[in-house]
Amino acid sequence: MTTARRDTYTPETLLSVAVQVFNERGYDGTSMEHLSKAAGISKSSIYHHVAGKEELLQRAVSRALDGLFAILDEPGATTGSAVGRVEYVTRRTVEVLVTELPYVTLLLRVRGNTRTERWALERRREFDHRVAELLGAAAADGDLRGDLDTRLATRLLFGMVNSLVEWYKPHSAADRDQLAEAVVRLAFDGLRTAG
Amino acid sequence: MTTARRDTYTPETLLSVAVQVFNERGYDGTSMEHLSKAAGISKSSIYHHVAGKEELLQRAVSRALDGLFAILDEPGATTGSAVGRVEYVTRRTVEVLVTELPYVTLLLRVRGNTRTERWALERRREFDHRVAELLGAAAADGDLRGDLDTRLATRLLFGMVNSLVEWYKPHSAADRDQLAEAVVRLAFDGLRTAG
Repeated sequence: MTTARRDTYTPETLLSVAVQVFNERGYDGTSMEHLSKAAGISKSSIYHHVAGKEELLQRAVSRALDGLFAILDEPGATTGSAVGRVEYVTRRTVEVLVTELPYVTLLLRVRGNTRTERWALERRREFDHRVAELLGAAAADGDLRGDLDTRLATRLLFGMVNSLVEWYKPHSAADRDQLAEAVVRLAFDGLRTAG
Repeated sequence: MTTARRDTYTPETLLSVAVQVFNERGYDGTSMEHLSKAAGISKSSIYHHVAGKEELLQRAVSRALDGLFAILDEPGATTGSAVGRVEYVTRRTVEVLVTELPYVTLLLRVRGNTRTERWALERRREFDHRVAELLGAAAADGDLRGDLDTRLATRLLFGMVNSLVEWYKPHSAADRDQLAEAVVRLAFDGLRTAG
């Protein structure tokens, strides 16, 4: 015996619920049953919107990746000195991470067990590689320390940026801008007082 | 029908296998059955050594925590300027993380579902707090940038340091020292060429 229920879900709201469940239970640990319960709609209603949970994962990580890759085409990332461009990309990466927090969190937790996960990992590596290239160009210009390996610097930089998903709680746009500025200052100028 | 099998396991080797399984499957996702299979010994043999999987978790995270807290009592952490001490603690934290990689990895993945996990989280927060105090003292000395909030700086610093568990593969002691130096230079002096 079921009661009639109007399906007010859009692909967008379903995606938002799915991302939350994926982040809580892990993608592997999430079943269509979990998604159905969390969304408060039947499994068949979900199948009306998407082919399955992998399609939801694909849409969610695409949203994060599209946000990140769009940064690289912005004027701040394509004009000016390499060091200025890489600072710009770092600042905007923090901003996108904060704005799209659940989607980027999911992206960063992807393991590689399915085709979609492996594709997402590949795209993440591509983004990191683009930033590493910028860091290399800035180092070649003499604007970055010569004693830091570019690959290592990229990993440490993203290590710091990506760690935000572990503790950041959204408050206000002002917080977001201050946070992005703090990350850029720490990463590029360091904690020490400018000597 | 079972074949006689000499139990050559010591608490130490059993711990090492358990930590590997916990890191692969997650602590919640690991059963005594998984541990028994991975160790190649019966569950009753495991119970001969420990009361259960929570005792293994407790021993494992204790090893990581003991390594981290010991740093704070070393002369480099207790004498000299605050900024020198916090640089020392950062360098040694990277070294302990690399030396005790699986144990620190497990510590950083603890969620807080059991008493042992909550205790481990509490001890981690205590360690972070001790480092934040050092950063605060260095800032008060005028040796750290005044525009970075101490709490945020601590989080970003540990974000960078802790991200090592995601990609570091042990090679040699030289690598370890170079890595620790790179982290300290990036965190304290920044990526940019000293102006």
